[in-house]
Formats: sequence, C-alpha cells, structure tokens
Amino acid sequence: MLPRIVVAGNGQLGQMLQQAGAPMQLQVKPVEPNQDIEVALHDDDVITVEIEHWPDTVTGLQLKNHPNFRNASALHAVIDRQRQKSLLDRLQVPTAPWVVLESENELSEKLESLGERAVVKRRRGGYDGRGQWRWQRGGEIEAEWAGTCIAEAMIPFSHEVSLVGARNAKGEKVFYPLTRNWHENGILRASVAGIPVPEIQQQHAQEWLSRIMDDQDYIGVMAMECFVVDGDLLVNELAPRVHNSGHWTQEGATISQFELHLRALAELPLITPEIKGVSVMYNLLGRNWKPEWLGIDGVHVHWYGKSLRPGRKVGHVNINRPTVEQLKQSLSDLRERVDDEDKIAFNWSLDQL
Amino acid sequence: MLPRIVVAGNGQLGQMLQQAGAPMQLQVKPVEPNQDIEVALHDDDVITVEIEHWPDTVTGLQLKNHPNFRNASALHAVIDRQRQKSLLDRLQVPTAPWVVLESENELSEKLESLGERAVVKRRRGGYDGRGQWRWQRGGEIEAEWAGTCIAEAMIPFSHEVSLVGARNAKGEKVFYPLTRNWHENGILRASVAGIPVPEIQQQHAQEWLSRIMDDQDYIGVMAMECFVVDGDLLVNELAPRVHNSGHWTQEGATISQFELHLRALAELPLITPEIKGVSVMYNLLGRNWKPEWLGIDGVHVHWYGKSLRPGRKVGHVNINRPTVEQLKQSLSDLRERVDDEDKIAFNWSLDQL
Ligand SMILES: Nc1ncnc2c1ncn2[C@@H]1O[C@H](COP(=O)(O)OP(=O)(O)OP(=O)(O)O)[C@@H](O)[C@H]1O
Ligand SMILES: Nc1ncnc2c1ncn2[C@@H]1O[C@H](COP(=O)(O)OP(=O)(O)OP(=O)(O)O)[C@@H](O)[C@H]1O
Ligand SMILES: [Mg+2]
Ligand SMILES: [Mg+2]
Ligand SMILES: [Mg+2]
Ligand SMILES: [Mg+2]
Repeated sequence: MLPRIVVAGNGQLGQMLQQAGAPMQLQVKPVEPNQDIEVALHDDDVITVEIEHWPDTVTGLQLKNHPNFRNASALHAVIDRQRQKSLLDRLQVPTAPWVVLESENELSEKLESLGERAVVKRRRGGYDGRGQWRWQRGGEIEAEWAGTCIAEAMIPFSHEVSLVGARNAKGEKVFYPLTRNWHENGILRASVAGIPVPEIQQQHAQEWLSRIMDDQDYIGVMAMECFVVDGDLLVNELAPRVHNSGHWTQEGATISQFELHLRALAELPLITPEIKGVSVMYNLLGRNWKPEWLGIDGVHVHWYGKSLRPGRKVGHVNINRPTVEQLKQSLSDLRERVDDEDKIAFNWSLDQL
Repeated sequence: MLPRIVVAGNGQLGQMLQQAGAPMQLQVKPVEPNQDIEVALHDDDVITVEIEHWPDTVTGLQLKNHPNFRNASALHAVIDRQRQKSLLDRLQVPTAPWVVLESENELSEKLESLGERAVVKRRRGGYDGRGQWRWQRGGEIEAEWAGTCIAEAMIPFSHEVSLVGARNAKGEKVFYPLTRNWHENGILRASVAGIPVPEIQQQHAQEWLSRIMDDQDYIGVMAMECFVVDGDLLVNELAPRVHNSGHWTQEGATISQFELHLRALAELPLITPEIKGVSVMYNLLGRNWKPEWLGIDGVHVHWYGKSLRPGRKVGHVNINRPTVEQLKQSLSDLRERVDDEDKIAFNWSLDQL
C-alpha cells in the first residue's frame, strides 16, 4: 500500500526518517551511495536524499537513475553555490550580494566589489562551515579560490533563522514557524523555536520558499537558512532535505519534519504543523550524553550511534516545555549538567527566551 | 553504556518498545520464545516480556534462566488467575468476589455463592476475553470449568478504567492518570485519557498498584484494570507489561509507557509523565487504516504490520488534541471516515468528553 522510501546517504537524517516511518510501518531504507555494488531497489520505491551529492558509483547511479528519484532538479540547482545563488536571483529572492570567482587575476577586484569583508565559499561540497574563508580588504587571497568558489558580502546580521517547509506533488505546502539558530564556526550549536516571530519575516520566508519549491516542482521537506538584517530577511542558503534546524519538531510540533517529508514522498496527506509550547535543540558535537539529563522535564535525547570525534555531530537534545518559564527552568537545570564548553549554548538559548 | 533489552514475545508491544528505544539508540530485540533454537543473548542483556507465559522450549528456557530476567515473581503471580486474585486479597486490594472452581460436583454451589451472575474465567492463557463464560443462576454449567477456572461475581460497573505505572529498582514509582476504557466482548475498543478523574479513584489506584509493585519488587511498567462501582474502584486484573490502554501515551504524554518501561529496565531516570491535552485511542480490529485519516488534526496511526484477520488487533489510532473541543472535532471528522461498524467506538469516546 505504501511505497518504500530509499534514502541516499547513511547518516542520522536517514535514521530519523526511519524512526518517523516506523509507527505506520512505512519502510525507510538508507543506502550508502558511495559504493560499487548493485543494491536491490524495487520499481515502486521512492528515492530521496539526506546528502546533496555523491560520485557516479554503481550504487550512486542506480539511485539517480531510478524512475522515482525525486527532486533531481532542485539538487542540481543547490549542489553548486553558483547555480543556487543564480536560482535565488532569478526568483527574486533576496540573498547576500555575491560574485563568482573565476580567473585568478580578477580575484581581488571581485572581492573588493563586495565591500570591506566577504565570505568565500567553495561552490561544491561544503557543509558545517567547511570550505569557507573569511576575507577582508587588504587580506590574503588564495589562488585556489579561482574557478572553485563564490564570494558573498559579509552580512552584519543580528541573528539567523531558518524556515522548514514541505510541498507535495499537488503543490500543497505547509511550514513551521521560523526557527532561531546559533552557529559557531559555521556549525549549528543550538536552535530555539516557538518564540514570537515578526509576521513580515514569516510571511516573506514562506513566500520565497514557496516560490523556490514551486519553481522546482519540489516534493518533500526543504529548509531555507536566512540572515535577519534590519528586521527583514536575506536568504543564506537552501537545503533540499530535512535539516538540523528542524530537529526540534520531533517533540515540539504535532508532526515532525521527518514525518512531513515521508508523507509528501508517499503521497499521504500533509497537515499544517501545530507548535507545542517552546523548544530548544542543542547539538552534541563530539560529546556523549549523560543519563542524568533524562531526569529533567522535557529533555529528549537523540543519539546517532556514531563514534566520537572532536566536533562531530553525534546527537542532539530537544528540550520541549509548555511555557517559556518551564523551558528556562529545564535549560538551567541542564546547563548545570553539561560539559563546561557547552554551557555557552544554554546561555545563548536562554538569552532568546 | 546502555544494556540491550530483549523482549520475550514477537508482537506489537515489542515493536513499540523498539520504536521508543530508537531515538537514544537503546537496542530492543524482540525474541519469539516458542521455538527450539539457541538465540544469542549477552550476559548484560536485560530480559523483559510482552506476553505472560510461554512453553519450556530451548529459547523459552534461555530467556527465563537468564540472570537479568526481570519480574519472574510478578509473572508467576499473574499468569494464573487463582494466584493473581490471592495476591490481591493478601495485599488487601479490593477486587471482584471470587471462587476457585475445583471439583465438578461443587460447581453450582460455588457459582451460586457469588450471586445471580458470574464470570467464569480460565485460570491460564486467556486474553481479549477469550476463555471466559457468563453464567447466571439456573444457567448451564460446563464440566470442564472444574480444576481450570475461577469465577467472579458479575460486577455492575458504571465504566472501566486502568492505571499504568512504572517502578524502578530503587523503588521509585510514577503513574499516568486513570484511563477510561471501553471493552466489547472482552476486547478493548477505545480509551479516553486526559479527562478529569475523581481524586479518590486516582489515589486508591496508585496506592494499590504501588503496594503490588513494591511487594513484587517489580521493575518496569505494570497496568491495573479496574471497574468503577459507586464512585470507587475494584481491581479487575493486572498486566505485568506495557498495556493497550496505555497506547495513548505515545502522543498524549511527555513520555510514553514504552519509554518509561525501557528507562526502568535500563536504570535511566524516570520522570513523572505530564499529560498533553486530551487523547482517544481507537483499536483497529481486523481492519486496515485509511490514508485520508492522516489529514485530520491530531491523528496518529500505529500499524503493526500484521495480516488482517477478523477481530485481530492490527493497529491503533491515537487522536491527541490540546482541548476537548478540538478533540471532539477531530473525532467527528474521523468518525465520518471509518467503517460503519467502528463508528460506535467514536460515539462512545465522544460520550466521555
Ligand atoms: N555572507 C555571510 N555573511 C555572514 N555570515 C555568513 C555568511 N555566509 C555564511 N555565514 C555564516 O557561516 C555559517 C555557515 O555558512 P553556510 O550556511 O553557507 O555554510 P554551510 O557549510 O553550507 O553550512 P550548513 O552546514 O548549514 O550547510 C552561516 O550560518 C553564517 O553563520
Ligand atoms: N467480574 C466481572 N464483572 C463484569 N465484567 C467483567 C468481569 N470480568 C471481566 N469483565 C469484562 O470482561 C472484560 C475482559 O475481562 P478480563 O480483563 O478478565 O479478560 P482478559 O481476557 O484477561 O482481557 P485482557 O485482554 O485485558 O487481558 C473486562 O474488561 C470487563 O469488561
Ligand atoms: Mg550548506
Ligand atoms: Mg548553512
Ligand atoms: Mg488479561
Ligand atoms: Mg483485561
């Protein structure tokens, strides 16, 4: 009755999609695309991704060439920052001013055209802030940027937010409220959701993400990262998949981003997510969780079963409480019980409430 | 770090325990005990059950003889209705008056001692109302009852409720509010939770279940089914495991009965469950679910992946909404979309709100 959902990629996002499908016995099978073996796919499987690109291996090509491989167009557009920024420009979605860095001898001219400071980003393959350099007028320029990078004006944002939305084959779309995110060194440390959001920001974000998803005939969940500048938004980048800044929806909404993604792919009804109370998501970067955390009201540990490596995303903790006051209490309690280096994530979260 | 939890039994309860453990990578492995093969158990596995008894097969004995097999004493007490009723009597927990049916020639005398009407129940192996007979004065008596059954006075209850609670090795205990249950032909059709409960009933139920769990040094979730008579409770029976009348906790509480059971077994902190809004649980008995149900706010389908057989529990639907009014709306919407024979479950649920 329901198709099997095959996920290209073998990480935590596929795992959490699998967990979201389990209660209704919607089968979700993560597949590592970077291998040269023939995997068993059915004709009526639906193929989705948790990573944005992979090599043309035997498995990789099998996935891409499957008749039900979804969102090839959006992936093509997003996987290269030059194409992604061009898409945003074409759809008149405001984004940080940018240039392509082509030939070596125009590098400084191009960078200077962006102002005093810029962020240089590799066109392909970067995530968690990898493949990025900060440049400022008079600063060092690396020859390897030419032909492989774009540069963006450094945006003096007051904070960062993201919109997670879903679209189905009929073009129906639903959205969560904007989530407030804190990145450190390009990597997401914490998110806060369920706090008031300026209406104009929510409205613009939904308009823009709708425009993008409709343009790409997109099916499933897409996330859009934004900078808040002068009370309005500039789009930073798109993620054509479930997204770390949407993890709070596992306990913080009537339907999680994972279930929404599956429903869209399996042609099950979408519903507008309702928000339950207030939530904080805190990423476990290279550190283990502690059983005593579970004694704190509203704490939900999500562990990915990976080995620990410094800075590696190995899990996250959702803290969901009915009211801001109760959430503050749980956050304060939890702050006492995390490693010193992580207390800062709680200080930031508490500051947002 | 966490022990693996091995579940004796291969049905939906083990499946849902597995789902509850997945987010924190707590491994849950259901094992069919009724087979003569040697299964691979680890010394530090913790063994729990989703069924109450099984034959002394190779696997069955392996499970029972494992050093971390939990709640052997409670299982021993509960598995035979004579022992179970004696336990309740010994602990002064009020229960329906009862007799053991021993020799054939005292059957009618014993039954008549209970009043006008009685329920004859096989001492072992009955569930979902199987192995039960209704008797009334002057009615037929079956010889096979002698030596295999108990009989209980027929209780003219106004309705049925159940208490689900958990206890850990330290003796800490937590409880959900009483759930109101509707059985038809001995099988649970629907539950309602999150509606007001008379304090005296909640208090008595918790006292009694505490007494039972403490007496048995019980670890994990136990359910206690009760009749409401004249505003107070009489205990019907005990289930030393997660229970169908606790399924609403999957979306209706801050922690589900399945996670509580796992936490108690894995020596993780228990927390007092907080109730989210109002919930109805509706059992799918021998019928499939319909995708359109998912378009109704608050509807969560749990499907067990079993083949359909008339009357077989093949899934359940939890309907959780923040307010009674919203729940009524969702129930009315869902009632329109279920098979005619099932509308009665919605009528009953709506009557309780
Ligand atoms: N133009 C910019 N101006 C200011 N800060 C920026 C800019 N671009 C990126 N950043 C900062 O760096 C972070 C990471 O940048 P970006 O989202 O482009 O990287 P990524 O590696 O693709 O991240 P992700 O893991 O979200 O895919 C942003 O969240 C923001 O904090
Ligand atoms: N003494 C009684 N008086 C009135 N009704 C009774 C009595 N005993 C049982 N019933 C009715 O029959 C139902 C099933 O009885 P009981 O719970 O003993 O059976 P079971 O087969 O063990 O059920 P379960 O599937 O819950 O284990 C009860 O929920 C109640 O509705
Ligand atoms: Mg990115
Ligand atoms: Mg980013
Ligand atoms: Mg029973
Ligand atoms: Mg019963």
